[in-house]
Amino acid sequence: MAERVVLLDLYASMFGMRARVALAEKGVEYEYREEDLRNKSQLLLEMNPVHKKIPVLIHNGKPVCESSIIVQYIDEVWNEKSPLLPSHPYERVQARFWADYIDKKVYDAGRRIWFTKWEEREAGKKEFLETLKQLESQLGDKPFFGGDTFGFVDVALIPFSCWFHTYETCGEFSIEENCPKLIRWVKRCMERESVSKSLEDPNKVYDFVLAIQKKLGHK
Amino acid sequence: MAERVVLLDLYASMFGMRARVALAEKGVEYEYREEDLRNKSQLLLEMNPVHKKIPVLIHNGKPVCESSIIVQYIDEVWNEKSPLLPSHPYERVQARFWADYIDKKVYDAGRRIWFTKWEEREAGKKEFLETLKQLESQLGDKPFFGGDTFGFVDVALIPFSCWFHTYETCGEFSIEENCPKLIRWVKRCMERESVSKSLEDPNKVYDFVLAIQKKLGHK
Repeated sequence: MAERVVLLDLYASMFGMRARVALAEKGVEYEYREEDLRNKSQLLLEMNPVHKKIPVLIHNGKPVCESSIIVQYIDEVWNEKSPLLPSHPYERVQARFWADYIDKKVYDAGRRIWFTKWEEREAGKKEFLETLKQLESQLGDKPFFGGDTFGFVDVALIPFSCWFHTYETCGEFSIEENCPKLIRWVKRCMERESVSKSLEDPNKVYDFVLAIQKKLGHK
Repeated sequence: MAERVVLLDLYASMFGMRARVALAEKGVEYEYREEDLRNKSQLLLEMNPVHKKIPVLIHNGKPVCESSIIVQYIDEVWNEKSPLLPSHPYERVQARFWADYIDKKVYDAGRRIWFTKWEEREAGKKEFLETLKQLESQLGDKPFFGGDTFGFVDVALIPFSCWFHTYETCGEFSIEENCPKLIRWVKRCMERESVSKSLEDPNKVYDFVLAIQKKLGHK
């Protein structure tokens, strides 16, 4: 059967970028469809009626929702190339634990930096840096979170790096000063075409955020 | 190698109960250790230094944290009996999606009913019932969320049922009136020894909540 793969996405979404990176790692060709979140397509509403959110991967007509679940699915279905999750159950536990940690911490802390007013911004910045330091310490001296190879945790975290410029500008701080090893890891990941081609231009992400802030009356 | 399995847990925790049900389904013997959350054991702090939360499954000295990850690990390691996740990738997606939905919705909505004051309680009740109705509609006419067999989503949701009495008493409403099929599913699950032996007595859960409310000055 000919594979038909469609990704409903939004250009600046770190969650969408996870799916893009995973598909690129596996060499899967797909159709990218940009969604307008103020005017969601009928297809998005049909494919993700519960959350009505992007990204949605549609594989031969069937929807897969929630970015971590999408990446696991891609890893399980296109399993001949670039395994993302390790094969040993205990190593899988660790990969799942850190991907879950990123899900629970990084987005929310980052959002407090750019989405909120001054008072909460400082608390968000502190939490965001603590989270990145925890991740940096978990990375240790390994080239990737997956060890010698790029893996599930790398896919989960790397899309946030094209938001770093936005966090730094809105929060007036430097991530590199605080987490130099993590920035070296970002550069290492960006040498992979699967990553560099899938991540959005940091300036475009910042413009996206400026437009939201303007609507909210924050600037 | 002789297996050594320890569970750090709290009797009223629905997340701990997920691990207990999964271990019972697989017939794994383990040592249960009750934690006092106001005075956490050195072992808990060492085994889960990031979140410092129960449940933690310690398998031959190695910790596994976060209940959904624990249940997947149990399913992968003791894989000869009672598979919890389906073997087909697309069915796994659906099981993961609904377990994730339960993680994101049920606990928080339930907590708004018993942990908050009156104003928020009403909103929590509405959200809680909407969530249960969504789940009931996903269950449909199947005996279990896993279809004909008890599976991953059943393990994720069933521990909340011993909190239903607490939600109903604090929120002054009847779950059965709103979700009769879901209550029939609870009864079906309770016929399994793995469930009935692992779930806490609803009255003890309610006493646990009353003690917290008293400390908070809500009653």
